[in-house]
Amino acid sequence: MKRLKCTIEYDGTNFSGFQIQPNGRTIQGDFEKVLKTIHKGMDIRIYSSGRTDAGVHARGQVIHFDSPLVIPTERWERALNALLPNDIAVKTVEEVDPDFHARFQVRKKEYRYFLLTQKTRDVFSRNYSYHFPYPLDLERMRAGAGYLTGTHDFTSFCSAKTEIEDKIRTIEEIDIIEDGQKIVFRFIGNGFLYNMVRIIVGTLLQVGQGKLEPIDIKFILEKKDRTLAGETAPPHGLYLWQVWY
Amino acid sequence: MKRLKCTIEYDGTNFSGFQIQPNGRTIQGDFEKVLKTIHKGMDIRIYSSGRTDAGVHARGQVIHFDSPLVIPTERWERALNALLPNDIAVKTVEEVDPDFHARFQVRKKEYRYFLLTQKTRDVFSRNYSYHFPYPLDLERMRAGAGYLTGTHDFTSFCSAKTEIEDKIRTIEEIDIIEDGQKIVFRFIGNGFLYNMVRIIVGTLLQVGQGKLEPIDIKFILEKKDRTLAGETAPPHGLYLWQVWY
Repeated sequence: MKRLKCTIEYDGTNFSGFQIQPNGRTIQGDFEKVLKTIHKGMDIRIYSSGRTDAGVHARGQVIHFDSPLVIPTERWERALNALLPNDIAVKTVEEVDPDFHARFQVRKKEYRYFLLTQKTRDVFSRNYSYHFPYPLDLERMRAGAGYLTGTHDFTSFCSAKTEIEDKIRTIEEIDIIEDGQKIVFRFIGNGFLYNMVRIIVGTLLQVGQGKLEPIDIKFILEKKDRTLAGETAPPHGLYLWQVWY
Repeated sequence: MKRLKCTIEYDGTNFSGFQIQPNGRTIQGDFEKVLKTIHKGMDIRIYSSGRTDAGVHARGQVIHFDSPLVIPTERWERALNALLPNDIAVKTVEEVDPDFHARFQVRKKEYRYFLLTQKTRDVFSRNYSYHFPYPLDLERMRAGAGYLTGTHDFTSFCSAKTEIEDKIRTIEEIDIIEDGQKIVFRFIGNGFLYNMVRIIVGTLLQVGQGKLEPIDIKFILEKKDRTLAGETAPPHGLYLWQVWY
């Protein structure tokens, strides 16, 4: 048995999310179908660094699986890319130690969230960034984001639907970068709760519009109450960008 | 009656082309449906600078239509964008003289064709540029393109299906620009025949790969025979970029 680690990219637009489910197209479902073909009918399970929701994209999702086949890694890459649908691509394939685990050994992750601020809609980015044509004060948003970096209980910024008990996470870095008509939010941290990045973005947008003060972010964190934070920003602006092990 | 000129943008991926047809979604069909709503059931016909095929995009297509309504142009823009589907957008609306015609008064047009040359597929540009991961000699392609600028009979570079008799057109400029892993072809001319840009790109790719010599372009032009030129490059790399009046 060989354990293979793959870095994959996908356009989340036409998927019901990463995780396999009885109805709807999923990244896991499509990938495992291809592995089954390569293994002549044998079921091969994949493990990812974490799920992504419907509509969320990935530039650098990481998965692993075990295979009895003896194939050089370049040929794995070619075989997978030839069989995968055109909205999933394999960027790299490496053979790793049998104790490597795509989920349990994550050291940190980077997510990016893209806003498009121009007045008129851009048809080409309709599925790839959130169109938000309203004035935003970036300095206020950066000040608000400052309260989120470090180690905190992120209960207020996590979907109430979560079953995870431990809501303490460390955000190492939040950058908010303006690039012409785009605003890019970069988040690096040791882990992110369900919907956490999208709720943070939704809340920072309220700070940027003057509906909340930067210091309110501190109070919202302290209250551990999801209803105090802003709306969950839409999925199509979000990208799982990179995973470090 | 007021005549309105609109510059529109569309993502051609999910359309069967510009021109209305009994089956399949078209840009004209969707646009006229919106105009009918705005005019409370009255049919309003639109006229474009020219059709685009299924899968072909537009950054600056121009259309005109006549309306009995008295609405300021900014409100036209907002009303149209609110009602149009999210893969068609109106960029500008202007009131023009009643003798303006989007098709008959075109002075020149710009088309762009995008290639992606990186080895691995990029899922995000799968519908927006042609993935061509093979070595290309740009200097050879530029030399070949040099034979196409000026006024010529473009019969060899036009789909045999065309009904247009006069195949003489003037290409003012062909630029081939390398931008990282992208190659952009810019074509400016007084008019383009059916599939002409895509056939030129397909033929220049053969020159770039060494399958044809640059001088062969001259011979192909002279023979007035479509079968001598290269394959029609796929539609999803092509954009109607700009129209001048």
